[in-house]
Amino acid sequence: MLLAKVIGTVVASAKSARTDGLKMLILQPLDLEGSPKGSYVVAFDAVGAGDGEVVLYAAGSSARQTPATDGRPADATIFAIVDTWEVGGFVKYDKSAAG
Amino acid sequence: MLLAKVIGTVVASAKSARTDGLKMLILQPLDLEGSPKGSYVVAFDAVGAGDGEVVLYAAGSSARQTPATDGRPADATIFAIVDTWEVGGFVKYDKSAAG
Amino acid sequence: MLLAKVIGTVVASAKSARTDGLKMLILQPLDLEGSPKGSYVVAFDAVGAGDGEVVLYAAGSSARQTPATDGRPADATIFAIVDTWEVGGFVKYDKSAAG
Amino acid sequence: MLLAKVIGTVVASAKSARTDGLKMLILQPLDLEGSPKGSYVVAFDAVGAGDGEVVLYAAGSSARQTPATDGRPADATIFAIVDTWEVGGFVKYDKSAAG
Amino acid sequence: MLLAKVIGTVVASAKSARTDGLKMLILQPLDLEGSPKGSYVVAFDAVGAGDGEVVLYAAGSSARQTPATDGRPADATIFAIVDTWEVGGFVKYDKSAAG
Repeated sequence: MLLAKVIGTVVASAKSARTDGLKMLILQPLDLEGSPKGSYVVAFDAVGAGDGEVVLYAAGSSARQTPATDGRPADATIFAIVDTWEVGGFVKYDKSAAG
Repeated sequence: MLLAKVIGTVVASAKSARTDGLKMLILQPLDLEGSPKGSYVVAFDAVGAGDGEVVLYAAGSSARQTPATDGRPADATIFAIVDTWEVGGFVKYDKSAAG
Repeated sequence: MLLAKVIGTVVASAKSARTDGLKMLILQPLDLEGSPKGSYVVAFDAVGAGDGEVVLYAAGSSARQTPATDGRPADATIFAIVDTWEVGGFVKYDKSAAG
Repeated sequence: MLLAKVIGTVVASAKSARTDGLKMLILQPLDLEGSPKGSYVVAFDAVGAGDGEVVLYAAGSSARQTPATDGRPADATIFAIVDTWEVGGFVKYDKSAAG
Repeated sequence: MLLAKVIGTVVASAKSARTDGLKMLILQPLDLEGSPKGSYVVAFDAVGAGDGEVVLYAAGSSARQTPATDGRPADATIFAIVDTWEVGGFVKYDKSAAG
């Protein structure tokens, strides 16, 4: 799984019925310092993430292992909103302290 | 999932029977500004996308999670035609305004 | 799925019984101009492709979605022999005109 | 599977119920000399790995093939704590000798 | 699937019970000339491959499609020991002639 920030949304009216009711969010993956790293991905949202929030997403078939995305054409799903992460004993991100 | 533009088609007569009736479209993945990014992919079409349209596709096993592609050798499937996407509050693409 | 050209074969006598009867072909992926792009892949053949032919292959679990490869350790399978492809209205490849 | 070192943890309170009870660890993949190589990954822990330990993790759907991660949105799971590895007859890592 | 050479082994005593009895080998992927290409991978062995042997391995969920790896957290499995491969009519590798 990777850390990412919610930076946008995609809207589509003509789509597979199996995606009904799912919100499609644009994610910017982050490195461990919280800086953007790599290219965007569009993910389904299984946890009610909001714009600007830092999340964890799963890719591949594991993206279908939430009640919201079971049996859906989901190759990326947000399954957690991150509170904190630490590396080597240093807190690198703390949601309560973030802007 | 990634944003992409339909740029072409592939035709094959000698093929696995499990692909019968599926249209094979050539996609050019897009970055968030709508510019080409990365290499093409050939995808099955589950939504009736047309040439030049901007779509979303799923990769891997999730590409089989549409009625059209269930049980098919599909590792990429178009599951939505994009209306709009926005990043940081700015509309980056609006189908109704696009050329 | 990607376009590729059959460029060789692999032979193995000591192998999992689940691969019995499957031909293992070496593929060179192609770009949309038909030029080699990226590294080779070894694929199982589900359509009787011959040396030098241009094919489509599926990767990942979708490579097991043909009668020939069901339940086999196949992460790449040729499922179609390409007749033509076109991009932006231009025919980029036509089997009947090739070689 | 890849060799990696546990370098941190991620904490999330708002998350899919299917991740309850799973520890999320940050891994730094290693090359065969034991040096960092490539980008971090967040993995679920199926073996009780501790900070600084060298582990093996599986990616993709195989990350769900442990009792701890079955049916979970896990695309990376630690399934072993490494004792030793050797390349070409030379021991490259020995846990009992490591700092 | 990719060609690779067995170059080492990994030993782990603290591991998921689902990996019991499986040998973990370190593979160096090869290009079509038989030279090392790309980074190592750790694979389970389903065919009794020995050190220095040239093998084929499958990645992803297909790595679980052997009797030895069914239901195991295997994202890479050796399923064949290579006898020969040829490209464009030229034999690039022949086990019986190799070192």
